[in-house]
Amino acid sequence: MRDGEIYARGSADDKGQVFMHFKAVEAYLKQHGSLPVNMKFLIEGEEEVGSANLDNFIRTHKDLLKADVVVISDSPMFDRGIPSICYGLRGLTYFQIDLRGSKSDLHSGSFGGAVANPAMVLAQMLAQMKDKSGRIKIDGFYDDVVELRQEERDEWARLPFNERKYKQELGAPKLFGETGYTTLERTWARPTFEVNGLLSGFTGEGAKTVLPAVAMAKVSMRLVPNQEPQKIGDLFEAYVKKVAPKTVELKITRMHGGKPWMTAFDNPFVQAAGRAIEQGFGQRPVFNREGGSIPVVSTFQEELGLPCVLFGIGLPDENAHAPDEKLDLGNFHNGVIASAYLYQEIGALKV
Amino acid sequence: MRDGEIYARGSADDKGQVFMHFKAVEAYLKQHGSLPVNMKFLIEGEEEVGSANLDNFIRTHKDLLKADVVVISDSPMFDRGIPSICYGLRGLTYFQIDLRGSKSDLHSGSFGGAVANPAMVLAQMLAQMKDKSGRIKIDGFYDDVVELRQEERDEWARLPFNERKYKQELGAPKLFGETGYTTLERTWARPTFEVNGLLSGFTGEGAKTVLPAVAMAKVSMRLVPNQEPQKIGDLFEAYVKKVAPKTVELKITRMHGGKPWMTAFDNPFVQAAGRAIEQGFGQRPVFNREGGSIPVVSTFQEELGLPCVLFGIGLPDENAHAPDEKLDLGNFHNGVIASAYLYQEIGALKV
Repeated sequence: MRDGEIYARGSADDKGQVFMHFKAVEAYLKQHGSLPVNMKFLIEGEEEVGSANLDNFIRTHKDLLKADVVVISDSPMFDRGIPSICYGLRGLTYFQIDLRGSKSDLHSGSFGGAVANPAMVLAQMLAQMKDKSGRIKIDGFYDDVVELRQEERDEWARLPFNERKYKQELGAPKLFGETGYTTLERTWARPTFEVNGLLSGFTGEGAKTVLPAVAMAKVSMRLVPNQEPQKIGDLFEAYVKKVAPKTVELKITRMHGGKPWMTAFDNPFVQAAGRAIEQGFGQRPVFNREGGSIPVVSTFQEELGLPCVLFGIGLPDENAHAPDEKLDLGNFHNGVIASAYLYQEIGALKV
Repeated sequence: MRDGEIYARGSADDKGQVFMHFKAVEAYLKQHGSLPVNMKFLIEGEEEVGSANLDNFIRTHKDLLKADVVVISDSPMFDRGIPSICYGLRGLTYFQIDLRGSKSDLHSGSFGGAVANPAMVLAQMLAQMKDKSGRIKIDGFYDDVVELRQEERDEWARLPFNERKYKQELGAPKLFGETGYTTLERTWARPTFEVNGLLSGFTGEGAKTVLPAVAMAKVSMRLVPNQEPQKIGDLFEAYVKKVAPKTVELKITRMHGGKPWMTAFDNPFVQAAGRAIEQGFGQRPVFNREGGSIPVVSTFQEELGLPCVLFGIGLPDENAHAPDEKLDLGNFHNGVIASAYLYQEIGALKV
């Protein structure tokens, strides 16, 4: 019997997708009396805080986790009614930048004009991270980026993606991203630089004429194949040091990161997942990439030599990682059926 | 008998300076039995939150506040052992900028690359407020600025100002300001643009891969004679609208402001104050300007037609508006003596 492994993650939509597998196992056992594969479930609750312990757990439990393939149910479908198989993920590298301009907050009247304002310096530094076309200016940042293949661009261009509706759903006045790429290309296959948080000085109601002593930014970059988080992190640190003026003390803290990932369409497990989805949802899945990161995919690959199949049935508008995160019940039911077929398809593989 | 008026403000050093006048009055009465001037005390506690009610109080109590001169004890001495008379103040205009890029926070993986990041847009907008030489780029900003007179520059250049010690006391890695001006000139007689506060996205411990929906900055400009807060505010709003991209919703909130002020050296009340300081501190005061704002000085001028004398005995390192604000006792005692002489000098004036 084949050994599979189900990896489940922490947030609400992920929990629903774990439950989908439990229901599928229950149904399969009821129908057939036994499963067509051996299964191990790995359930983790630290994903949204950087999965500090997961990699180490995998590294130190290689025997326990032996398998033929890893199934990860976390990625969303392309859209309602359009099931999809995800063959690529972005990676991540995350930093905190702290600037100090003086030993304590100063009165902006008495001292305004004498010293640099760290909040202003931070703004000036962040503004140097991207040019007006949305391209990231960190030296060497794009060196290892695998450019989109024409067939990917063609396939994605055929997807029923409505920019106007998308913009409306996000409540964005206007979409914006790197010149020369479509929105899907930008979110799935191009790296980004984002400011995740800003804090400096007085932020309460009303006005306070303070010249802040410190300013802080949380920033992160989504990475695409073959950008290495470690290398990009080094390039980022070098660039930040280059653009930081001598008027402030600079502290850079490197936080969590994860490698981008991409697999081949014709991988037999990926193809098996495609057939299972078709049987669960009544239609062939589209093959897409995802903008998010699942760093453990690389860990399974590198530590255990295991391929991953991303077998997700969430919807893009289910507020993943936000308040009111949810999971569609119709997709859940179809997902239960598809999961049962997936076990059968994998069990039947001669690889 | 002449009518004077003592105006006291809200923070710790100011409170100490009010008390200085109380002690001087007490001592004078004990010595002479009566005062050489009629005095009215106006004590206000809202200075550091914009003095929302003070101007209106003055406007609606003109009879109550009738006087010949206003004495304001709030400004600092130039340095320990160097008493000073302040003949100019900066004004202020204060704003909050709010940007919205989407209706709610987004997952930076799923949506990073699709929409503008309001924290990044805010940084880009703020970075356009000043050029590298520290000059403010708002169109028309410097049009009404009264340039420093050569005699002021010469007088200030002779003051015992130690840049190295000043930098050290502030704990600043390096001083910074508008090219072409000394530190004293920058803080006393040149306008500034400061970021007083920044807030966006995730600012707690650790990392959260959020693409923030909103970003906020508090910003203010110190103004110098003859910049009008209302006019500068209009120029600022126009410039912000010019540099704001269409990818975000922009909201500008105008908060409090105050006019800059400057009086003549040879004003008889200013000269009387100089003589009083000399008797209290045993040395002639230097004549300087201040970087802070006391908007009510203009209100007294415009609403009551009253000249103001800034008669302050604080020290620049007394942490005005910060934790551990304090007042030097030696200066307090000299200030009590000087105040008593001030009443006598004003009472004796034939103006």
